[in-house]
Amino acid sequence: MANDHIDKAFNINPAFVSKQKSVKPIQYYIDGIKSGDRFILSEAITLVESQEEVRRETGVALMDYFHSIVPTSDTLRLAVTGAPGVGKSTFIEHFGKYLADQDNKVAVLAIDPSSQVHKGSILGDKTRMQHLSTHPNAFIRPASAGSMLGGVAKGTKESIFLCEAAGYKTILVETVGVGQSEYWASMMVDMTLLLIQPGAGDEIQGIKRGIMEMADVLVINKADGNQKNLALQTAKAYESVLPLFKPRFNDLSTDIAVISAIDKIGFDELWQKINHFNQSSIKAGHYTSNRIAQELFWFDHLVRDTLYDLLFKNKKLAIQLEELKTSIASGQLSSASAFYQIQKSIIAALNV
Amino acid sequence: MANDHIDKAFNINPAFVSKQKSVKPIQYYIDGIKSGDRFILSEAITLVESQEEVRRETGVALMDYFHSIVPTSDTLRLAVTGAPGVGKSTFIEHFGKYLADQDNKVAVLAIDPSSQVHKGSILGDKTRMQHLSTHPNAFIRPASAGSMLGGVAKGTKESIFLCEAAGYKTILVETVGVGQSEYWASMMVDMTLLLIQPGAGDEIQGIKRGIMEMADVLVINKADGNQKNLALQTAKAYESVLPLFKPRFNDLSTDIAVISAIDKIGFDELWQKINHFNQSSIKAGHYTSNRIAQELFWFDHLVRDTLYDLLFKNKKLAIQLEELKTSIASGQLSSASAFYQIQKSIIAALNV
Repeated sequence: MANDHIDKAFNINPAFVSKQKSVKPIQYYIDGIKSGDRFILSEAITLVESQEEVRRETGVALMDYFHSIVPTSDTLRLAVTGAPGVGKSTFIEHFGKYLADQDNKVAVLAIDPSSQVHKGSILGDKTRMQHLSTHPNAFIRPASAGSMLGGVAKGTKESIFLCEAAGYKTILVETVGVGQSEYWASMMVDMTLLLIQPGAGDEIQGIKRGIMEMADVLVINKADGNQKNLALQTAKAYESVLPLFKPRFNDLSTDIAVISAIDKIGFDELWQKINHFNQSSIKAGHYTSNRIAQELFWFDHLVRDTLYDLLFKNKKLAIQLEELKTSIASGQLSSASAFYQIQKSIIAALNV
Repeated sequence: MANDHIDKAFNINPAFVSKQKSVKPIQYYIDGIKSGDRFILSEAITLVESQEEVRRETGVALMDYFHSIVPTSDTLRLAVTGAPGVGKSTFIEHFGKYLADQDNKVAVLAIDPSSQVHKGSILGDKTRMQHLSTHPNAFIRPASAGSMLGGVAKGTKESIFLCEAAGYKTILVETVGVGQSEYWASMMVDMTLLLIQPGAGDEIQGIKRGIMEMADVLVINKADGNQKNLALQTAKAYESVLPLFKPRFNDLSTDIAVISAIDKIGFDELWQKINHFNQSSIKAGHYTSNRIAQELFWFDHLVRDTLYDLLFKNKKLAIQLEELKTSIASGQLSSASAFYQIQKSIIAALNV
């Protein structure tokens, strides 16, 4: 099946090379990814993010090629979530460097569901991560604007895999900390870190149940300067309320770590806790079953999310849809009646 | 167009009468609704809620018939929202009776997105509304379980219209106060009342911005007994934060009323405020434009929400979908690759 796609991509590409000079033969991407070329990896990610047919086809062929030969069972996909201002970027830069310094190849991807609406810049300002971005063991990919699909940066899931194919072992997925970005991120990772600001106990009440229940490790950040004691108190406060929340897997309890991202304090302990959680997850079978469940989730999501656009590429249906909308807007037709009519046409078009 | 549907329904019905004895000729429903027969109105609502083809077809034909002859521009659709325990049912019972006593025909519908998950009974316990349910000017329709579409009680929008066709002038839509029910309700009404419990100021901080911005009138309930002063304080507190929230329409500011549903206090003032808001909305053109926007919204929602089920009624596509899921589950295929394949088949099936 994989070969089928690759051949197709090979056959199609030359004809398009003149018009689409940015799509190169698939072997170029394969070789580049295999050799760990970060520039070519970045080009390959552009393919899986693309809506354009030839790029996407090559991107899918690449996925298929590596899917059969790259074992991904030794990689760790980590979401880094938390409210805006909690220090996610600083954490990723310094903790990422901490890992990269230990010969752990680290890739950082951003999931940005709404860069237009919310202010928080997300990996956009490259200078924020200058230490990490120049590290030989690190790869940083900012979110590409305007490539969203149902609130998700299109292709983030695929980008994770391409990074793994290029040899990256720890994938950090940064969220903006607003809206549904945590949810989408949690659906593409093995573990979720929730960064928390030191604060009074009543802030705990404000934390959303859903966010807490997505988190596998709570990371109390900013345990530095005169906030150190407050951070420790905050950790205790969270520890006391943890039993009120359901962990993601019944047999793996949520852990808590106290760190200072800016002062690089507590990283050893945090990394130990992450590894301990991950090993327990592997042993219990959650690591594998979770990845399969996620693949099925994304498949379903992609299908549901594109059906509308797909369907109304059919000109007859598209024209009828617009006519019905006009009739509704003029008050001639109810939504129920218009829906009934288009439904009949869809069924007819599909020869069901 | 309307006649077309009616004829069809007429032609089809007799053949089904033996098998589907609960679907009666359309004239039965037309006559019943015109004469204000509450039992027949209830039967008609069952038709628009139904997933069964003949029932739905008759339901749509009914909608079409009344759509062209019933002016609905003198009706008022009101959502009653608020957290569980704030007294929504008591409010609806007593305020509904207050309106019904003034010869205002009142219909009460429930929107229940998740009756299985959440405990709050919603119009389920008929005895809760015994005063209203036996009133000659009132019609109460509990939410039918198991007829949900994308989180919405399927047919609630249509039920509102059928009630209006039967002569009801004020339609109260009750929500459960959890999840997204307020959102869905707000998308089918002219105005939203948000019931609020008297409480300390810090509770205001806990209120979700989204919920506040959906509300047109804040109704501080339970201004009775020793809570009376607290209710007045609460009203003041909300008044002071209102400028922080965006009203639904820029030129119509959110109003606040203080009532006691159980003691029937403040109903005159509340009704005045509701009417004032509504008249301003009519004058500014929002009333009409909002209803049209809502019809378009529901049409789009209905289409998007049923496409998946519709598409996979096509046996070939359904079989392929299952095969792809099996390949994903066994690790043979990535979600991206599987998606690419089914997309191609959908396009082929649609002859795009």
